Amino acid sequence: MMKAVSIESGEASKAIGHGVNRGLSVFDLVLRIVAIVGTLAGAVAMGTAEQTLPFATQLVQFSAQYDDFDSFKLFVIVNAIVCVYLALSLPFSIFHIMRSRAGKSRILLIFLDAIMLVLLTSGASAAAAIVYLAHTGNTSANWFSVCQQYTDFCQRSAGSLIGSFGAMVCLVLLIIFSAVAISRR
Amino acid sequence: MMKAVSIESGEASKAIGHGVNRGLSVFDLVLRIVAIVGTLAGAVAMGTAEQTLPFATQLVQFSAQYDDFDSFKLFVIVNAIVCVYLALSLPFSIFHIMRSRAGKSRILLIFLDAIMLVLLTSGASAAAAIVYLAHTGNTSANWFSVCQQYTDFCQRSAGSLIGSFGAMVCLVLLIIFSAVAISRR
Repeated sequence: MMKAVSIESGEASKAIGHGVNRGLSVFDLVLRIVAIVGTLAGAVAMGTAEQTLPFATQLVQFSAQYDDFDSFKLFVIVNAIVCVYLALSLPFSIFHIMRSRAGKSRILLIFLDAIMLVLLTSGASAAAAIVYLAHTGNTSANWFSVCQQYTDFCQRSAGSLIGSFGAMVCLVLLIIFSAVAISRR
Repeated sequence: MMKAVSIESGEASKAIGHGVNRGLSVFDLVLRIVAIVGTLAGAVAMGTAEQTLPFATQLVQFSAQYDDFDSFKLFVIVNAIVCVYLALSLPFSIFHIMRSRAGKSRILLIFLDAIMLVLLTSGASAAAAIVYLAHTGNTSANWFSVCQQYTDFCQRSAGSLIGSFGAMVCLVLLIIFSAVAISRR
């Protein structure tokens, strides 16, 4: 009934709006794939980080592994969770490309994206705090900089943060583009 | 012109939609005020955390302060930034209560809320990682649990996290409600 009274220009602007929405949905899909790669790379790089020092006392063999640090364990778990979530959200993203008017599923995705953003940010920041501490140490708490011995381990764990922080940027963009798509619906 | 052809039930459902949107906007305002209180309490509680131990060697007086730990400094700064942002966003929130159809300003707020959520989460998680480390220590890195000496300081810094995490929940809810309000516009 609405269509019967809508004028030509209205139809045209609607068509343009749908085109923009479809473009946003394609970008949404690309961002999700980039974020999957980022979180996967972060989890794998951190999960395989270990180093054994070339010297040992009679009693102790010095070695460092990611699961000696609870924050690094959390980091790997969180990256894995977000990676799986993003993989599961791909069908929704493809569905949005085909049906640019879908609204409720977009709100669901904004909700879940926001939760995953919080999860990923907390894991990455906790790991970053420990990496920073391992690099600089802390004199007032008498915590030594362990990176002077475990150089390889430190580099690996610091590098694995990059993927996570890239995925965080992707998730922020995803939330914003979803909001724009909903408003243009 | 649209109004001329719209039927009674359409008008009625629109009015209900506006009522729901106004309710969401009021809730938005309340959440912002709660988040302001949370971030302010977190910043003040952490910023005033310090402890001097009742014993001293001839050379050293043992004391701990929040700015001995870079993560805690970051925590205070981030909480202050988010608190100021939330205070500045209150006029927008009040504007949304009066004009429930406003769309672009809501998208701007979703964008800024998402950025602030990431900031606050990273600050709070980094501080939480250090608080956790101070409580448990780490044997493989030879970091001792400093909370056995600095009990008051540890309790204060752990408690100050509560306000921040509460504000994080508020910000997630704010993003979701804004998305719902936009979709119902």
